Amino acid sequence: MSSFGTLFKVTTYGESHCKSVGCIVEGCPPGMNLTESDVQVQLTRRRPGQSNLTTPRNEKDKVQIQSGTEFGVTLGTPIGMLVLNQDQKPHDYSDMDNYPRPSHADYTYLEKYGVKASSGGGRSSARETIGRVAAGAIAEKYLLEAYGVEIVAFVSSVGKIAIPLHETASSAILDPEDDTFESPITAEYLKFLNKITREEVDKTTVRCPHAATAAKMAERITRARDNHDSIGGTVTCVIRNVPTGLGEPCFDKLEAKLAHAMMSIPATKSFEIGSGREGCKVAGSKHNDLFYRNADTGKLGTLTNNSGGVQGGISNGENVYFTIGFKSPATIGVEQSTSRYDGSDGVLAAKGRHDPCVVPRAIPIVEAMAALVVMDAVMIQQSRIASRNLLPNAQ
Amino acid sequence: MSSFGTLFKVTTYGESHCKSVGCIVEGCPPGMNLTESDVQVQLTRRRPGQSNLTTPRNEKDKVQIQSGTEFGVTLGTPIGMLVLNQDQKPHDYSDMDNYPRPSHADYTYLEKYGVKASSGGGRSSARETIGRVAAGAIAEKYLLEAYGVEIVAFVSSVGKIAIPLHETASSAILDPEDDTFESPITAEYLKFLNKITREEVDKTTVRCPHAATAAKMAERITRARDNHDSIGGTVTCVIRNVPTGLGEPCFDKLEAKLAHAMMSIPATKSFEIGSGREGCKVAGSKHNDLFYRNADTGKLGTLTNNSGGVQGGISNGENVYFTIGFKSPATIGVEQSTSRYDGSDGVLAAKGRHDPCVVPRAIPIVEAMAALVVMDAVMIQQSRIASRNLLPNAQ
Amino acid sequence: MSSFGTLFKVTTYGESHCKSVGCIVEGCPPGMNLTESDVQVQLTRRRPGQSNLTTPRNEKDKVQIQSGTEFGVTLGTPIGMLVLNQDQKPHDYSDMDNYPRPSHADYTYLEKYGVKASSGGGRSSARETIGRVAAGAIAEKYLLEAYGVEIVAFVSSVGKIAIPLHETASSAILDPEDDTFESPITAEYLKFLNKITREEVDKTTVRCPHAATAAKMAERITRARDNHDSIGGTVTCVIRNVPTGLGEPCFDKLEAKLAHAMMSIPATKSFEIGSGREGCKVAGSKHNDLFYRNADTGKLGTLTNNSGGVQGGISNGENVYFTIGFKSPATIGVEQSTSRYDGSDGVLAAKGRHDPCVVPRAIPIVEAMAALVVMDAVMIQQSRIASRNLLPNAQ
Amino acid sequence: MSSFGTLFKVTTYGESHCKSVGCIVEGCPPGMNLTESDVQVQLTRRRPGQSNLTTPRNEKDKVQIQSGTEFGVTLGTPIGMLVLNQDQKPHDYSDMDNYPRPSHADYTYLEKYGVKASSGGGRSSARETIGRVAAGAIAEKYLLEAYGVEIVAFVSSVGKIAIPLHETASSAILDPEDDTFESPITAEYLKFLNKITREEVDKTTVRCPHAATAAKMAERITRARDNHDSIGGTVTCVIRNVPTGLGEPCFDKLEAKLAHAMMSIPATKSFEIGSGREGCKVAGSKHNDLFYRNADTGKLGTLTNNSGGVQGGISNGENVYFTIGFKSPATIGVEQSTSRYDGSDGVLAAKGRHDPCVVPRAIPIVEAMAALVVMDAVMIQQSRIASRNLLPNAQ
Repeated sequence: MSSFGTLFKVTTYGESHCKSVGCIVEGCPPGMNLTESDVQVQLTRRRPGQSNLTTPRNEKDKVQIQSGTEFGVTLGTPIGMLVLNQDQKPHDYSDMDNYPRPSHADYTYLEKYGVKASSGGGRSSARETIGRVAAGAIAEKYLLEAYGVEIVAFVSSVGKIAIPLHETASSAILDPEDDTFESPITAEYLKFLNKITREEVDKTTVRCPHAATAAKMAERITRARDNHDSIGGTVTCVIRNVPTGLGEPCFDKLEAKLAHAMMSIPATKSFEIGSGREGCKVAGSKHNDLFYRNADTGKLGTLTNNSGGVQGGISNGENVYFTIGFKSPATIGVEQSTSRYDGSDGVLAAKGRHDPCVVPRAIPIVEAMAALVVMDAVMIQQSRIASRNLLPNAQ
Repeated sequence: MSSFGTLFKVTTYGESHCKSVGCIVEGCPPGMNLTESDVQVQLTRRRPGQSNLTTPRNEKDKVQIQSGTEFGVTLGTPIGMLVLNQDQKPHDYSDMDNYPRPSHADYTYLEKYGVKASSGGGRSSARETIGRVAAGAIAEKYLLEAYGVEIVAFVSSVGKIAIPLHETASSAILDPEDDTFESPITAEYLKFLNKITREEVDKTTVRCPHAATAAKMAERITRARDNHDSIGGTVTCVIRNVPTGLGEPCFDKLEAKLAHAMMSIPATKSFEIGSGREGCKVAGSKHNDLFYRNADTGKLGTLTNNSGGVQGGISNGENVYFTIGFKSPATIGVEQSTSRYDGSDGVLAAKGRHDPCVVPRAIPIVEAMAALVVMDAVMIQQSRIASRNLLPNAQ
Repeated sequence: MSSFGTLFKVTTYGESHCKSVGCIVEGCPPGMNLTESDVQVQLTRRRPGQSNLTTPRNEKDKVQIQSGTEFGVTLGTPIGMLVLNQDQKPHDYSDMDNYPRPSHADYTYLEKYGVKASSGGGRSSARETIGRVAAGAIAEKYLLEAYGVEIVAFVSSVGKIAIPLHETASSAILDPEDDTFESPITAEYLKFLNKITREEVDKTTVRCPHAATAAKMAERITRARDNHDSIGGTVTCVIRNVPTGLGEPCFDKLEAKLAHAMMSIPATKSFEIGSGREGCKVAGSKHNDLFYRNADTGKLGTLTNNSGGVQGGISNGENVYFTIGFKSPATIGVEQSTSRYDGSDGVLAAKGRHDPCVVPRAIPIVEAMAALVVMDAVMIQQSRIASRNLLPNAQ
Repeated sequence: MSSFGTLFKVTTYGESHCKSVGCIVEGCPPGMNLTESDVQVQLTRRRPGQSNLTTPRNEKDKVQIQSGTEFGVTLGTPIGMLVLNQDQKPHDYSDMDNYPRPSHADYTYLEKYGVKASSGGGRSSARETIGRVAAGAIAEKYLLEAYGVEIVAFVSSVGKIAIPLHETASSAILDPEDDTFESPITAEYLKFLNKITREEVDKTTVRCPHAATAAKMAERITRARDNHDSIGGTVTCVIRNVPTGLGEPCFDKLEAKLAHAMMSIPATKSFEIGSGREGCKVAGSKHNDLFYRNADTGKLGTLTNNSGGVQGGISNGENVYFTIGFKSPATIGVEQSTSRYDGSDGVLAAKGRHDPCVVPRAIPIVEAMAALVVMDAVMIQQSRIASRNLLPNAQ
């Protein structure tokens, strides 16, 4: 469905060619300062056309808060938000409409709903994500104010070009008999995750805060564009200052909800928490995160963080971080030999200019979904803590 | 929470040392033949102690159906099921209880609930998965009878030992300037996925149906055990004969629900659909799945299947397949220098014998969660189809 | 929360002085003809200012469909709808703002949210119901097209003035030793419920289709208005052509969902299904609905219908009907001696003109909520039927 | 479905002739003292066979906690509970099985599920309520410890025999022109609600704490039994010390959830909050609850309580009270001329002894459902309060 969350819940609507896209946010704590500009900042980061690396369409995407605030303060009631669509008319018919675009959602939407929307994939359009980003901006504001939570996503790879810290030496990869394989998550990488900021991320259009890598990524995207082709990549996201105790086993573990949230973003192919898939190659004795006493807080911390801040599905107070894979965009200018809806063979080539790589634009969407997951988990855990504290003889 | 699903919903209960573990299954279609033996087969596959590669504890795990069937037929009412715990007493106190086990859930459960269960991680115990497997067995039976759906999971890697088909040539991996990178999902691999059976999977204790690789995996696990250490791996699962149209955008896409389900299994670190993270390195022109007309069915199919049977979050009729990473078990015999709950330093070494690798045992759990996701998606889509068909003038 | 339903789900937003009020409808079957005029008809019936018996404010309330349809056909995606507020500015401050209005929601909203909205009761405003009515109109359209379901609500009493059929002879009421008490639901009343139409209901401004009673009701409302006072009443609603099998025991019985839906409408005090509270005074031998074979359909029907079309929480194919009590509006011109927020005593008298009786305007709201409940129940039951039918060996 | 609640959630299973009935309770606050005896007390009150006024079957109904507690303390994990069925075998076939019992659930269960359970109405059996009562006992214990909440239900009428306080003088009822009609909720009645205890309720087998009325009720029930007939009645429930702010508009208002909960209990026909249906006949000037400052607490209270402790769907700190109508039991010994499943006419008379009136036994069920509703509302509101309090600059 188009709803996400239990206590802090967002419901979205809208596709490419309708009047508006938007959302309703239920359960926002009352008494929080909130204006449209708090929401707009992430919508603007999401907007296409910000660089020559992404789709050149120029969209406006100004959010309008409909309800739930008064005099710039949240009332605790549902917050309606919308962004008008510039292009509200179904597009002109062309031969392309006879084809389900390969690896796009045209065919599956038709199979599921039995109705062929003029936009083809209906809600699979990237415009659907506006509602997520708007809702996420509210969650993020609360989390920052209440807990100092910081959420920063960045492009960690494009094609085979990856931030060096993030990859393992090839020698260790290649010999299956070599048990010395270490966690790909180095101390240096953990430090990097600990200090990276959105300002650093936004310094390059490719949104990779590792300058040398960013330049290579930009080249790779340019090469894809020049070839009328496309390329995928990965986004890594870190959430700092996460309180302990978030996540609801056994089904709604924090990483399970994060995986759900991230894999619901269009074009995603993989989700990895902490050391991820590579970490599964490491022996337990090298992978376990040993505890130490944090002298500042008096609480336990872990010396390493292969767990990605989550153990047993519950946050442990360390940074939560994860990596999401996005496939190469399906819409490409290269000619493709593929069948029409009617089963006849043909050749399809997308006209116009299309986004050769989505990962830079995906950054605020990933941050929004992360905020929605953490916010909902916080509100559920707050209920548990408060309810327990009310017991005069709690054990 | 401990509930999963919308129309076909399972709610589970139970930890290691309580009287029983079990579940309630709501929404099962009425009129289906169902006895305890239908459920037992997967519980038996899940049971530890089946080989010398997994934990040698001997558990019985006989399921008892409490309600919801009569004369071997489902009534449509909730199906209660339980499995008695053999070891119902909290264990004896030892110095180990002063330590939160590294990368285990002891610390986070205490932070979350404020109560220290004698089992440490409470519901993080593997016994929690019994309820999932029992419920999944019912879903699986329905799906097979109604649609011929076949769900087969297998161990695709242990440490760095992987089924060859599943990995990409290292040369293509290593040169970042080389754009010729192809999808790791070869035609041969797709054929393998198309025909693999549970019988073939169960031929080896390591549950890898690729014989040569299975032997190496077994060696790797033995090496871990002999070192009092542990090792992780991956499980790949294929779902065949999936009807088109499953998955509920925008948040409950089929892969999002699968990711949620899989990442809720203990010890999971990654989820990848179709070509997964490696596929994101492939150019769009090589990654797109071109359509063709299937002469047998008259419907469209795709020539390749990098999408993993899902496009725009909706099943397209091709095989759905995905891979899950499981970390090395956290409980190891090797000594670990780590803090006690009180912050003092110490050395912890697990006594007794522990499971050096969980992936062989995870097979029926992955299959169960896959069945639960598909079953719920089927029932929601059935409602849509039936509702639409009742409209006399449906467009 | 502000969401209602499982498969056919509405989420609403908006209060009195914000930009707009509206809703998102998820799960509408695709392929249904739907335009704004289908929705507007019930919004217009809901609009105040239609007669001198209700509040004289003139509202426009034109619905705008934002998404989910194309070329007048539903896509199966979420349908966003909104109605602009005419009066978007918080009102001027007055001494009245120092008082929580007695029996209004001012005090409880402040206690719950800790924020004092300028409108006082926030979402307790009647404008909140616009989203319900818009969503209900879509459900209603589907139900009519797919099943011929007809939903008709009417005013059955105002103060002590009631449609005669609906009340029991006083002699039978008054003697507690007299066991001959018969069901208040006479055969004549059942016939009346079977044929009443919305056109007949709308013939009088008081929306009571029993002409003689309607005149007396109008007098009673006028008397209340002239006294700067208010008066309550009841609305009865009948749903005809309901398929058998709707309702999800044990918690989501059809009457339980109807009760939930109706008691969520502002100002409601009571819900009664079938013979209702009075029916509980009747002996089982006189209250049971005996079965007969309906020669037309070949199915079983009941000779009487004290059950209100629901047995064991599941529809039996007879007309579903129920009665809802609405209290006298809390806002009255009569002076009231009551405390201010700060605890000081004072005298409050509402200025301007206020609605002396809400029941005529409540008609489309009741119909909408009825449609939402039945629609959701239909979609869940459709899933069950379809799922069962797919079993080749269903018992 | 068979689940109820959002944060404090119960899922139940079981019918008459299966192995056991039971439930899983999710979301119970951790650290609470809880043993089986805390739960048993209400199950014992629910048990039939406690007097000659209710069904003489002798059931044992000993609850067994399966999980979620250790050393008598809740862990915060799901609490599994079950009660074994004494009579686990489907009953012997008789001619009665050819009839759908009038006003029972036999026919509708068959229509809904397409399977004829040997018990006829499947989950419509009163045994289904065991899971509710067990779960409610836990909620009740928490509410009492944390807030001092007291929940007391009692039989307020049987047939036409009602507690005098609860009914209005007939003269005021009968003249429709007489506007002087006062609220049926007198100051004396409010005092009665304020002090009534379960001990007083249990003093008579009919569970009416008004002694003179109780005797008449017992006579009425005896008369029904002697006539092989049955009789209905009402249960009134008061919840004291309810914190302000409970209830989630606009759909999950406190009275809407209470109505849902109560109307899901078998055999219920009506729900009334506060002054109820009769209160709707009273003019606003007489019905509004005026505010005063409570000198003890410094908070506002209301001088009357026609609202039943709820305004705008949110608790205001006054006692919450409501009345539920239960119909005459459908199973009677009197001969009934009714159709068989096959449509043929016949005569049905129930054999054996049956419960002539269910209201005395319904008391703990009503209390349980009330506790479940309030508990869930408390946990949601606790989350809101805690979340708001964490904002450093909350407005």
